[in-house]
Amino acid sequence: MKAIILIHCPDQSGIISAVTGFIHGKGGNIVYLDQHVDQEANVFFMRLESDFNYDEPQIHIFKEEFETMLGKPYQMQWSLHLNTTKPRMAVFVSKYNHCLYDLLSRFNSGELAVEIPFILSNHLELKPIADQFEIPFHHITVAKENKQSAEDVQLRLLKENRVDFVVLARYMQIVSARLIAAFPNKIINIHHSFLPAFAGAKPYHAAFRRGVKIIGATSHYVTEELDAGPIIAQDVTTVTHSHTINDFIAKGRDLEKIVLSRAVQLHVARKTMVYNNKTVIFS
Amino acid sequence: MKAIILIHCPDQSGIISAVTGFIHGKGGNIVYLDQHVDQEANVFFMRLESDFNYDEPQIHIFKEEFETMLGKPYQMQWSLHLNTTKPRMAVFVSKYNHCLYDLLSRFNSGELAVEIPFILSNHLELKPIADQFEIPFHHITVAKENKQSAEDVQLRLLKENRVDFVVLARYMQIVSARLIAAFPNKIINIHHSFLPAFAGAKPYHAAFRRGVKIIGATSHYVTEELDAGPIIAQDVTTVTHSHTINDFIAKGRDLEKIVLSRAVQLHVARKTMVYNNKTVIFS
Amino acid sequence: MKAIILIHCPDQSGIISAVTGFIHGKGGNIVYLDQHVDQEANVFFMRLESDFNYDEPQIHIFKEEFETMLGKPYQMQWSLHLNTTKPRMAVFVSKYNHCLYDLLSRFNSGELAVEIPFILSNHLELKPIADQFEIPFHHITVAKENKQSAEDVQLRLLKENRVDFVVLARYMQIVSARLIAAFPNKIINIHHSFLPAFAGAKPYHAAFRRGVKIIGATSHYVTEELDAGPIIAQDVTTVTHSHTINDFIAKGRDLEKIVLSRAVQLHVARKTMVYNNKTVIFS
Amino acid sequence: MKAIILIHCPDQSGIISAVTGFIHGKGGNIVYLDQHVDQEANVFFMRLESDFNYDEPQIHIFKEEFETMLGKPYQMQWSLHLNTTKPRMAVFVSKYNHCLYDLLSRFNSGELAVEIPFILSNHLELKPIADQFEIPFHHITVAKENKQSAEDVQLRLLKENRVDFVVLARYMQIVSARLIAAFPNKIINIHHSFLPAFAGAKPYHAAFRRGVKIIGATSHYVTEELDAGPIIAQDVTTVTHSHTINDFIAKGRDLEKIVLSRAVQLHVARKTMVYNNKTVIFS
Repeated sequence: MKAIILIHCPDQSGIISAVTGFIHGKGGNIVYLDQHVDQEANVFFMRLESDFNYDEPQIHIFKEEFETMLGKPYQMQWSLHLNTTKPRMAVFVSKYNHCLYDLLSRFNSGELAVEIPFILSNHLELKPIADQFEIPFHHITVAKENKQSAEDVQLRLLKENRVDFVVLARYMQIVSARLIAAFPNKIINIHHSFLPAFAGAKPYHAAFRRGVKIIGATSHYVTEELDAGPIIAQDVTTVTHSHTINDFIAKGRDLEKIVLSRAVQLHVARKTMVYNNKTVIFS
Repeated sequence: MKAIILIHCPDQSGIISAVTGFIHGKGGNIVYLDQHVDQEANVFFMRLESDFNYDEPQIHIFKEEFETMLGKPYQMQWSLHLNTTKPRMAVFVSKYNHCLYDLLSRFNSGELAVEIPFILSNHLELKPIADQFEIPFHHITVAKENKQSAEDVQLRLLKENRVDFVVLARYMQIVSARLIAAFPNKIINIHHSFLPAFAGAKPYHAAFRRGVKIIGATSHYVTEELDAGPIIAQDVTTVTHSHTINDFIAKGRDLEKIVLSRAVQLHVARKTMVYNNKTVIFS
Repeated sequence: MKAIILIHCPDQSGIISAVTGFIHGKGGNIVYLDQHVDQEANVFFMRLESDFNYDEPQIHIFKEEFETMLGKPYQMQWSLHLNTTKPRMAVFVSKYNHCLYDLLSRFNSGELAVEIPFILSNHLELKPIADQFEIPFHHITVAKENKQSAEDVQLRLLKENRVDFVVLARYMQIVSARLIAAFPNKIINIHHSFLPAFAGAKPYHAAFRRGVKIIGATSHYVTEELDAGPIIAQDVTTVTHSHTINDFIAKGRDLEKIVLSRAVQLHVARKTMVYNNKTVIFS
Repeated sequence: MKAIILIHCPDQSGIISAVTGFIHGKGGNIVYLDQHVDQEANVFFMRLESDFNYDEPQIHIFKEEFETMLGKPYQMQWSLHLNTTKPRMAVFVSKYNHCLYDLLSRFNSGELAVEIPFILSNHLELKPIADQFEIPFHHITVAKENKQSAEDVQLRLLKENRVDFVVLARYMQIVSARLIAAFPNKIINIHHSFLPAFAGAKPYHAAFRRGVKIIGATSHYVTEELDAGPIIAQDVTTVTHSHTINDFIAKGRDLEKIVLSRAVQLHVARKTMVYNNKTVIFS
């Protein structure tokens, strides 16, 4: 059994020694350890992977003792993840298909270790792709008058399907505070600009007007403030005066799908931690 | 003799044919031609390089006929630049030396084909570098009470030294409207962020707080609106959660000097044209 | 009607003037022109796009006169392409699906303006994807004893389906000289290294052993010498000591699909010209 | 006092726990820890930074006990470096000045925490730069007949000046096996290509002939096999068909100086470890 342990707590002398000593004592063999100290906030972060010759049931005792001997004394927030279960990912889309295709083709080829219980959209355009990949598709129209009830259906679907995290693959709708509260740091968005430049609507048009020489894409966890959540991944590409807005959009599509998939992979591999609206991304 | 001709005018059918026909008729051999049409603004841009077996005095007739036969009929704004004179560049600095060192070492090794009549600063810290490279150094303190007179001295120095363009190599002072008006699209600044993100003061601190994964630098022509002028060149580099603000600043220094020097080289090679607060950058 | 004209010929004074004058005289409005002179080989290259108020039948006369007045006198090799027909592209694959998925998803969303008469493979693994996108799939096993007959079938399929160009989307087989001769500069391969580094088999393993800090992918036209044809597009990504060979392969997949699709798009847009085993790639 | 400890040893369970426990017991506060396991070679690497409230003399006891309790039992090769001494760096140059200028301007501005006892060259061209920065310059001509005696002088200079490591800032001479043996993994070279592509002489010419779309620079430790030593840093930039060889060289200069300085900074910060002709580069 392989386990990933994520820890953050107030920084203090001796944590690494205490944690690695505990794991060594429990027969674990640490195959990866990375840590980070936020000097400003005085917070310690650690991610470690350890092999154990335990079976899953016994992990219960491990967790209890970890909490008693380390969690409480060091005021840790910590979590343990086994490699035996795949997280369940819902995908919300609108009309653009490039991010969806990229996620589904990775899923289909086994590159993306998740379950996808359903795809949800406020439009019908991408249903054929869901069909093509044989994944359930839910069409929920979102309009001013039915926002509340649409959200109710969304939340029910997420709950019924035991969804662990949500990917907004160019969803183009503002996600409600209620949904965000139900999935804190568990909704991943792709914004088609190099944030914080060009937050909000039509970023390629804004970039074109400004005459920038580089455009970007940003994947981030969704928070209540629009396009202002913790950044997981960013990438850029060059543009010139000779590119039209349509060229920006076409070049941007390639960025968007790669950056979103990269962020999803990092999330799935438990390589992201969030603190003070920023991420620690382990290597 | 080699001449570079820059043209912009309302777009219309037949311009390229007319211009290339004229140059061919005058015995010119076009060795480079690039053009761009801004479809939105309906403006045509062209840069061409042509070899002539003329001497410089005869170019006078060439220019007169060009204006009569092409300039007026096509409502062109155009300019002709000979490879026989080097533009004269003033450098304004404050306390940071990396951009200055980069410019001067390129100048010293013949890579940068300019004259540098003087370096100007509101501080004395970089005088030793000017001395090291044997370039006159003018120290002009800028304070609230003497802004007007400081500007007077700056303008006089620029005029007396027949300066063609000014490079703000991390000058850290806001340039007055009067100076900008005297050197339209001829003052090149380096801003230490990926504009339009993090305009204004302390961009690395702002980038650090936002938790971006990529930082940048932007070189642009100075206009009255702060950090909003036409962008000449941009570049970026990756950062991670493990980088401190000082790491951002150190990584940024390398970006800043390379991007500023690239912009200066483009300007010197007459590869930049400005329209609607954007640049056309010829290859 | 919009036409793209590609020209290369010995460099000489007056070509641009002659060509643009001709097109202007024929009522064409040039919307794009880019040219390049290979100074070493003394060869002139030009790509131009022009709008005409002709119908397609009349283009016949245009072409005859172009050949008489320009083609012959200037010893041009030239071609004219109308935007009214889509090139027909065959895709050869083996077992890896990421490049195929990327091409097909672009094709399906209208981003890639081609016809795809068939997908061909020496394996059956990717047949479900062809089915998913409803494109004919031909399975032709290639073994030592049947190489000749397998080629015969391939050539027949390409001919019967009037294929214009072939994309090797991680085909993993060496293409025969006969096929290359039948499709000169019309077979596009993706090699999973930054050529000329790591040509041949297992480039990621070789890159891993060498301890490089950057890996790449290269798309090129296939020539008889393995991995040595004219390069169309390249891109790279960073790696570190902490990446395993499998990480190299996973990061490489993203490069491969983007670089191959970029090369295919350039080919389809007639933005590539080949000379002396090198490409001119117009912007 | 701050100390950096570098360790490599056969991988085995419990090392991190043992080392961090030891340091904790000695009153050290670990502010950075990164580790890597080479799974193929079964080797464990670790770099840690720790604050101590020791003075330098007492470190002697620390080191003895570390060796007894950890070094021997775990078969470690380890080293401890204090932040109180600056490494001494000799710079070897030939005629190109861009890398030298970049190193010296960083040195002068305090960015590069080294001592530079001397610059050595087989030519006199760069003596004025050494003078400009007031660093001793040794001119040692290297010719076929005096290779042995030239080396003798070089080795004597390095020894007399207690040089810790050597930077070949475009030295253009092959360094002898004797010098390499005296400074194992302590001679840093910059090669002006993306190794292993274009090893050897005139890489830009070779890259131009091959028609690549990206060029690079590689900094590596010098080993007996030419351009084949462990790679420390690499970077690349794009080129097009429109770039001449001189453009390649000019663009390459910017890469070379940045990549070499980055490698030097990593070496100085003790962030590099070498194993099996590859580097581990800590973040």
